[in-house]
Amino acid sequence: MSKNITLAFDVYGTLIDTNGVLVLLEQLIADKAKSFSQTWREKQLEYSFRRAAMVNYVTFATCTLYALEYTCKYYNVSLSKEQKDELMSICKVLPAFDEVKEALTELKKDGFRIFAFSNGEKATLEKLLDNANIKDLFLGIVSVDDIKTFKPTPGAYAHFLRQADVKGEEAWLISSNSFDVTGSISAGMKSAWVQRSSDMIFDPWEIKPTLVVNSLLDFTKKIRD
Amino acid sequence: MSKNITLAFDVYGTLIDTNGVLVLLEQLIADKAKSFSQTWREKQLEYSFRRAAMVNYVTFATCTLYALEYTCKYYNVSLSKEQKDELMSICKVLPAFDEVKEALTELKKDGFRIFAFSNGEKATLEKLLDNANIKDLFLGIVSVDDIKTFKPTPGAYAHFLRQADVKGEEAWLISSNSFDVTGSISAGMKSAWVQRSSDMIFDPWEIKPTLVVNSLLDFTKKIRD
Repeated sequence: MSKNITLAFDVYGTLIDTNGVLVLLEQLIADKAKSFSQTWREKQLEYSFRRAAMVNYVTFATCTLYALEYTCKYYNVSLSKEQKDELMSICKVLPAFDEVKEALTELKKDGFRIFAFSNGEKATLEKLLDNANIKDLFLGIVSVDDIKTFKPTPGAYAHFLRQADVKGEEAWLISSNSFDVTGSISAGMKSAWVQRSSDMIFDPWEIKPTLVVNSLLDFTKKIRD
Repeated sequence: MSKNITLAFDVYGTLIDTNGVLVLLEQLIADKAKSFSQTWREKQLEYSFRRAAMVNYVTFATCTLYALEYTCKYYNVSLSKEQKDELMSICKVLPAFDEVKEALTELKKDGFRIFAFSNGEKATLEKLLDNANIKDLFLGIVSVDDIKTFKPTPGAYAHFLRQADVKGEEAWLISSNSFDVTGSISAGMKSAWVQRSSDMIFDPWEIKPTLVVNSLLDFTKKIRD
């Protein structure tokens, strides 16, 4: 049964902990670090949503850099080019969440078809997942950069389905990002929302996750049932 | 000369002061009101961006209501249905910024073709502009609800150009919202950004406004030159 099921794992925020930039940010700007990090992440995503809506593509890395520049202005923080470069570099070597390797290993053993599916560029994703020591667990890495748009445009999910050679009904998108869950369900897939802490809010829209889990190990357990 | 120029004024945040909800919010939730109002507005826009990207339309009023529900959860604020209804009702009767009537009156006298152009539904916009006592200054009100999408999708601006029967090069979009300026320029129009206070940040993208002004009266002065 599980051999017919394809699992698309979102990368940033789902497999990879984007809070990994906090350590350097705390050195650079002390007590502003946490809210700076949050604004940076929110702005990065907002820029990707708007670029998708505008049909005006730049890479996800460019969205990230522009969002960093916005956030510096917003908090009136002055960073040198070297410091910005260092922050951008750290984004390429962020760690995986603790339970990721064990969960993916179990799913692979069970015969699920496992993919990484992200806004990031393919070469960046390969290095990131390799550095986090989980790259070999995937059957493939699918990047929306191939088609020059971003999640949650329906084309992004259609691209994944074509790349993974699977139908929407047999494919799950697993993500901590609410927008990715509503986007994939709206585009015809099933989707699990990973709510790692109780203060994470699912968008109160008319679209609900197929499954809510509190970790990837919890997902592993529930998808087997 | 000016008779050939069409001016599309964004409504929420440009003509109409969305901070008008603050008075009631302060009564309801005291010191949380300002950040609550800001999150509500940001989430409302994020939801519209994502709906446009997802090609999954609901009205702007629905985006506003879902964003209100999100914001209540985010700040752990419990509002009754009546209180939410009252907040939503206030959004329909927000005031215009102080200088709007004078600026539009001068532009109209000069022969500019003046339109309101918004994400809101047409009936809502008509009541809003009527209540703010500026409705009669417009040659027309154009709503993207006609085509079931939101700014900044290129189709939104193309819809405006068709409705106003004008080419992009002869049409200006005037907006306090950075996303509307980058969106309209990317879609072939000219655009003025209204930076009402120095802490407003223009998105540090590769797209720059045709003109930056600090009020609509400042725009009136500069467009005449």
